[in-house]
Amino acid sequence: MKTLQDYIDKLNSLHFKEMYENDFFLTWEKTDEELEAVFTLADALRFMRENNISTRVFESGLGISIFRDNSTRTRFSFAAACNMLGLQVQDLDEGKSQIAHGETVRETANMVSFMADAIGIRDDMYIGKGNKYMHEVADAVAEGHRDGILEQKPTLVNLQCDIDHPTQVMADMLHIIHEFGGVENLKGKKIAMTWAYSPSYGKPLSVPQGVIGLMTRFGMDVVLAHPEGYEVFPEVEAVARANAEKSGGSYTKTNSMAEAFKDADIVYPKSWAPFAAMEKRTELYGKGDFEGIGELEKELLAQNAQYKDWTCSEELMKTTKDGKALYLHCLPADISGVSCKEGEVDASVFDRYRDPLYKEASYKPYIIAAMIFLAKFQDPAAILKKLEERNAPRVLK
Amino acid sequence: MKTLQDYIDKLNSLHFKEMYENDFFLTWEKTDEELEAVFTLADALRFMRENNISTRVFESGLGISIFRDNSTRTRFSFAAACNMLGLQVQDLDEGKSQIAHGETVRETANMVSFMADAIGIRDDMYIGKGNKYMHEVADAVAEGHRDGILEQKPTLVNLQCDIDHPTQVMADMLHIIHEFGGVENLKGKKIAMTWAYSPSYGKPLSVPQGVIGLMTRFGMDVVLAHPEGYEVFPEVEAVARANAEKSGGSYTKTNSMAEAFKDADIVYPKSWAPFAAMEKRTELYGKGDFEGIGELEKELLAQNAQYKDWTCSEELMKTTKDGKALYLHCLPADISGVSCKEGEVDASVFDRYRDPLYKEASYKPYIIAAMIFLAKFQDPAAILKKLEERNAPRVLK
Amino acid sequence: MKTLQDYIDKLNSLHFKEMYENDFFLTWEKTDEELEAVFTLADALRFMRENNISTRVFESGLGISIFRDNSTRTRFSFAAACNMLGLQVQDLDEGKSQIAHGETVRETANMVSFMADAIGIRDDMYIGKGNKYMHEVADAVAEGHRDGILEQKPTLVNLQCDIDHPTQVMADMLHIIHEFGGVENLKGKKIAMTWAYSPSYGKPLSVPQGVIGLMTRFGMDVVLAHPEGYEVFPEVEAVARANAEKSGGSYTKTNSMAEAFKDADIVYPKSWAPFAAMEKRTELYGKGDFEGIGELEKELLAQNAQYKDWTCSEELMKTTKDGKALYLHCLPADISGVSCKEGEVDASVFDRYRDPLYKEASYKPYIIAAMIFLAKFQDPAAILKKLEERNAPRVLK
Repeated sequence: MKTLQDYIDKLNSLHFKEMYENDFFLTWEKTDEELEAVFTLADALRFMRENNISTRVFESGLGISIFRDNSTRTRFSFAAACNMLGLQVQDLDEGKSQIAHGETVRETANMVSFMADAIGIRDDMYIGKGNKYMHEVADAVAEGHRDGILEQKPTLVNLQCDIDHPTQVMADMLHIIHEFGGVENLKGKKIAMTWAYSPSYGKPLSVPQGVIGLMTRFGMDVVLAHPEGYEVFPEVEAVARANAEKSGGSYTKTNSMAEAFKDADIVYPKSWAPFAAMEKRTELYGKGDFEGIGELEKELLAQNAQYKDWTCSEELMKTTKDGKALYLHCLPADISGVSCKEGEVDASVFDRYRDPLYKEASYKPYIIAAMIFLAKFQDPAAILKKLEERNAPRVLK
Repeated sequence: MKTLQDYIDKLNSLHFKEMYENDFFLTWEKTDEELEAVFTLADALRFMRENNISTRVFESGLGISIFRDNSTRTRFSFAAACNMLGLQVQDLDEGKSQIAHGETVRETANMVSFMADAIGIRDDMYIGKGNKYMHEVADAVAEGHRDGILEQKPTLVNLQCDIDHPTQVMADMLHIIHEFGGVENLKGKKIAMTWAYSPSYGKPLSVPQGVIGLMTRFGMDVVLAHPEGYEVFPEVEAVARANAEKSGGSYTKTNSMAEAFKDADIVYPKSWAPFAAMEKRTELYGKGDFEGIGELEKELLAQNAQYKDWTCSEELMKTTKDGKALYLHCLPADISGVSCKEGEVDASVFDRYRDPLYKEASYKPYIIAAMIFLAKFQDPAAILKKLEERNAPRVLK
Repeated sequence: MKTLQDYIDKLNSLHFKEMYENDFFLTWEKTDEELEAVFTLADALRFMRENNISTRVFESGLGISIFRDNSTRTRFSFAAACNMLGLQVQDLDEGKSQIAHGETVRETANMVSFMADAIGIRDDMYIGKGNKYMHEVADAVAEGHRDGILEQKPTLVNLQCDIDHPTQVMADMLHIIHEFGGVENLKGKKIAMTWAYSPSYGKPLSVPQGVIGLMTRFGMDVVLAHPEGYEVFPEVEAVARANAEKSGGSYTKTNSMAEAFKDADIVYPKSWAPFAAMEKRTELYGKGDFEGIGELEKELLAQNAQYKDWTCSEELMKTTKDGKALYLHCLPADISGVSCKEGEVDASVFDRYRDPLYKEASYKPYIIAAMIFLAKFQDPAAILKKLEERNAPRVLK
């Protein structure tokens, strides 16, 4: 697309009315056209920023961020997205122990939201908890809005939960779309989402789950590869299978990294913890059994260490399509000989893909901003038109 | 009121010139018309936000927040108030031990205020300290402004001190005014500010003191109820008595919660620590006697536990006016069977009043914004008029 | 200067094109005209703020702050500078241990900079590290911009490194220029940068180094005084010598505070740690030898204590030019009998100079804003003209 009008026309051709005044939890809860609206708007916002057209749609308003796990990248992406739209970020900085569910969530959610237009939450540490907590918050503010407490309903954006990592995988996907010259070129392409060795422990499952839950919707052949014992949520696998069938692609599994990489157009090698282990950890945490958690950690590290050969090596890369599959990672990667002795990827592979990897990450602020935008405006295309006509420069010129 | 002009007309009928370039420490340091100006402007700002009229009066500027005690609600209220006016919040995050009085306060206050239009402080932990500290800060920046250091004089807003909690009780009061259909309907109404049992310790006295210091000004019958030993500052009681006499209401005390609730139109059951104990704690803290503080805490919890029957039960609520007094709380409440085993209020009572309680809290950002606004503009009514004419939408439409 | 046009004319007479899209590390890496451009623009921005003309040049954008050492003053100065230009500050709050050099810096710098227009870093604790780290960050984002990752190149502002403290000493210098009625009046003036006793340990060398590296450029007689063993970086001394020769001033050294103060027009008495000790500390830190660091601390405090007579007393002040040299300090000062028993300066001296000291500090936000401004706009004078014509009030009037 060459002009803002192209993006506006595209938006006008899509159906996504249900996104208005709604939230974004899981990609598979959204229709294909809704996802396409997010991609289109993200590209439009980027186009505007590159052309120095201000995308400030709020004169005032807050974006509340709740990070129940440390985060730099996602925190900055959310801050950037809010800033781009004119919202000021305010962190709700609660110690893990201070947050309880139920009554307290309901109250706190309303108390911080009197001026909130958006709420971004990252809560990925415990199986069965993160997504549930996000729904509690979203329900609380929706009720507060219905009951006349909140003048506006803040939209909730899932910045990573125990099930999905929609802002990450949507950014990954937008990167793929651009690299392959359009979503129409993805049919039949092979993407390998594979486990890789890492010396660290307990990495969330939300990325591999998010990838198989989203990438199966574009007619691609999606392969999930991992050693035995590193299964992901069965529910998400069911989603992946259904998606593949509908989109004319495929979803297959293998316990061989080599098989997954063979002729792949795209590879996404990344460590994660076994689902069963994460469930056990959640249980131990619930009981406050920190000794048990320590034990589990040791077991998991020993288990990981059995699969050090699961690494994205130059040799494996050579087996991909023309030896140059697009290498993806959500970053930071465990790079062998750089950030650790043995890790997810060879340093030379990582080096070669650094620019595309950073580019991949650069879509996230736009994806988040697009999700907020689509929830706040009944006719986003008309608002883009207004912004174009207003033509306020982002940086004075 | 139906139009912004109504609020403007109301403001033009009030005398509040002394608020310009001034600060807000204690409600009883302000005249009736000054308080009415705060209520009127708070309502006007809310009206504008509800009608999507931007209230941004600052293109740039900082709002400095100093919280010497943990806070979520007040922090977000201050952030929201600043944001609504166009100020960016910057936290002065000093550990308790790092702040000293005197020379250091003078210097730090100036160093953080070069671009500050407002300073919000919460400092309620030690008797005789919080309000004093706020005055030190306000004096320092006033002097800095006089001496040509600071281009503008930041206005200080007391976000809770050892004596008063003006932004809380002004929000409570605005809620009452709206619930009763106007300040003119409050004469002769009975409000019970009563102590209630809580399993936690050392809650500040600023709320009960703020309530009796403010609510006695509207012709209401204000009853302060608490067990023996839970007295509040005598100086504030003197204020309450004088207010009641002047306003044609009354100020009475009782050691019976039942007596206070009987036929009350409004009830405000809430735990607080005994004044004498807080003084002792301040003294122990000054000496660094942490063992002594631990001892005192135990004593106070034991003392509290003697009065577990001081709770806002369904039975007590039935004895209020028509069985449906307006229930107030500054939140969070200790709810029996929810946030604690036995606490300040029955769960069913709290549930029934949840929406009004949240509404009560929702006035605080507007009250704070109004306090800042009145201190920054010589003719606030004219500025409202300008904002109406400018008619910039808060959210692009 | 009396009108904004005067500042614009002045800027138009200076050559500083190389500052565009560049960074600010050390004052001696900049030409005289470049420094004059910073002073001129800082004064212009102050003039505009005093005349209620908005200096907001960004509709949106982030200013990233990285403080690897505690800071209140510089933090607020950076926040104020960003706010004045329309940038929202986002802190990169990394624990010391979390930041590694090399690969990680490159990645993190890009990840936080997608929407960043400025990055401010304070990293002064370890010899040979701080400035190096800043260059790593600046190189990373410059490369990211070149490679199409970052739509804009954020400008890096050194908020204090192991070598220089350019925003501080530029603010000090602007203060001197104003106090002496213009840079043209400084030729032949004597300035004494002298060590002074402090009961605390390990104060950075960046201020004395920054002072001799900058103040030698204006034809002044710069004297560096310290007890034996408190030498500064030889490389910076070489810079000072070369500067003095070029500017027609002088750079001399003495081990006598009295000699330095004699007939001085300006005195800057301030404690710092010996260069050699700081190097040893860096080495011990690198080895994780915390016992060794504790030992070193004791030694340094004992060494300091030998020089308690190095203090800015009333007696010494009497020996300065007409007994009233301009007293400078970067604040906070160790004031004898106030913030410590024996310190850098007599309380009565400090008191007499409080207003000028605060004024000195007040230039820092403007200096930082000017540095950012000069890096972001190809024709800053034209932008000032635009702002004047736009004539948006900072505070609505």
